[in-house]
Amino acid sequence: MKKIEDCTFGIAGLGLMGGAIAMSLRGKTRRILACDIDAAALETAKKEGVIDEGFLDPRDMLPLCDVVYLCLNPLAMLAFLDAWMPFFGAGSLLTDIAGVKTPIVAAMEERLRPDLDFVPGHPMAGSEKGGFAQAKNCVFTGKNYILTPLKRNKAESVEFIKNVIYRMGFSRITETTAEDHDRKIAFTSQLCHVIAAALIDCEPDRNITHFGGGSFEDLTRIAMLNVPQWTELFLENKRELLRRIAQFEDSLDTLKTFIAEERKDDVRAYLQTARDRRAGMA
Amino acid sequence: MKKIEDCTFGIAGLGLMGGAIAMSLRGKTRRILACDIDAAALETAKKEGVIDEGFLDPRDMLPLCDVVYLCLNPLAMLAFLDAWMPFFGAGSLLTDIAGVKTPIVAAMEERLRPDLDFVPGHPMAGSEKGGFAQAKNCVFTGKNYILTPLKRNKAESVEFIKNVIYRMGFSRITETTAEDHDRKIAFTSQLCHVIAAALIDCEPDRNITHFGGGSFEDLTRIAMLNVPQWTELFLENKRELLRRIAQFEDSLDTLKTFIAEERKDDVRAYLQTARDRRAGMA
Repeated sequence: MKKIEDCTFGIAGLGLMGGAIAMSLRGKTRRILACDIDAAALETAKKEGVIDEGFLDPRDMLPLCDVVYLCLNPLAMLAFLDAWMPFFGAGSLLTDIAGVKTPIVAAMEERLRPDLDFVPGHPMAGSEKGGFAQAKNCVFTGKNYILTPLKRNKAESVEFIKNVIYRMGFSRITETTAEDHDRKIAFTSQLCHVIAAALIDCEPDRNITHFGGGSFEDLTRIAMLNVPQWTELFLENKRELLRRIAQFEDSLDTLKTFIAEERKDDVRAYLQTARDRRAGMA
Repeated sequence: MKKIEDCTFGIAGLGLMGGAIAMSLRGKTRRILACDIDAAALETAKKEGVIDEGFLDPRDMLPLCDVVYLCLNPLAMLAFLDAWMPFFGAGSLLTDIAGVKTPIVAAMEERLRPDLDFVPGHPMAGSEKGGFAQAKNCVFTGKNYILTPLKRNKAESVEFIKNVIYRMGFSRITETTAEDHDRKIAFTSQLCHVIAAALIDCEPDRNITHFGGGSFEDLTRIAMLNVPQWTELFLENKRELLRRIAQFEDSLDTLKTFIAEERKDDVRAYLQTARDRRAGMA
């Protein structure tokens, strides 16, 4: 495998994440190319020096790339592979950013040409504001990245992607299975977005923020989510997410019961455990 | 009523909030006094120039004050009034910071000497880290403050407290009833703390944060709460809080059902409404 600095990278989908990835790879690779259906985003990115060249037709870009970063929503990514699989360069390396892994990775593997290697990944970064124009506000420093390597992956492909991730500024890479990823992400990410949306669903008064002291704002900021993307993520990871919602409902119900029955000692013990546990988290 | 700069302020309870209030009033009043059971906190505050004088015995401080800022947990505040009511200066002005108003304000009124005026308030600021040592990290700039004036309040007392609040750096004062405060705070503050604690209750794995991308961290930071204080707030505002928990459970259940039944259009519409509504909030 070539060194990063000798590779041509292709970004498929130059939105918030694709744009941020391009920016964080700038100057560290031979060339950065991008394809998107949005000609204006490609033009801006080229003008700002974020990419070397933009392409509306993936067939013009894919053959030129050593590495292709798939930065599309899960279902769009599968459609992309269905349409353009013959055009990837021989032996090129693919990676993705999809927030759900088990169903998507299985579908990817079915579509993959035998000469290509695909290392599935999930950068734990983003912003409630989407699109290429917001990419510069999407920071990778100090952030987590999850990799769910496949049995068929070449060791050198996984090592290469890990080097790319650290070079982009991420602080921690966790390698695990697609199943473990989906179980944990259902909790740390999807359940949190469900809760934020449900909190906002409770209250139509937009001036309720006059009574906010920071907690409400922090808990609901992510309600400003990318609607099509999160709809996909919720439905694609439905089983794990529903399990996590049920688990959360049980925990909530326990505390509610303690409050309703004025079991002061139980409320205290519950809060103390939560406080200590959260304080012990990184 | 005297001008702020001619008044002696007394802070009863020099913890996180009492300390932050003293700091933000510094140089704007004639003198700032404080009483606390923690001699070390008083000494530090005096050495750092945050207060002019510290008192372990409230009987030594109260007669000297034009204004007393009660910065104690709700039940401790009532006990404080029971113990020291005779020692407040004639005609002095009281205000508080309690996070629940209806039961506390009623109990305060029962205890109040006729020559004193008491304007109930709630600064919507704080920190998950408590104590005087953390007071400098408790910022008031840009924050909300709720006042729930009493029918018996002199207009000049309310005006005076409002001037004090703006001088401390708060950006918005909302005047409302104790009942309206408790209904809204049950949502924006107490429900959020209940949710944060319940989320942490779900998951014993402290390394779950390796799978965090910011959402989980933002939603659970306030689980590091002051346990005795929040136990009191939950129980003192029990009726409104339980009503808000039930409302949230209904909203959560709706979204859960949409996901379980794979009603994609309903999930999208729910998320779109939440997104638009949250984006429309201040």
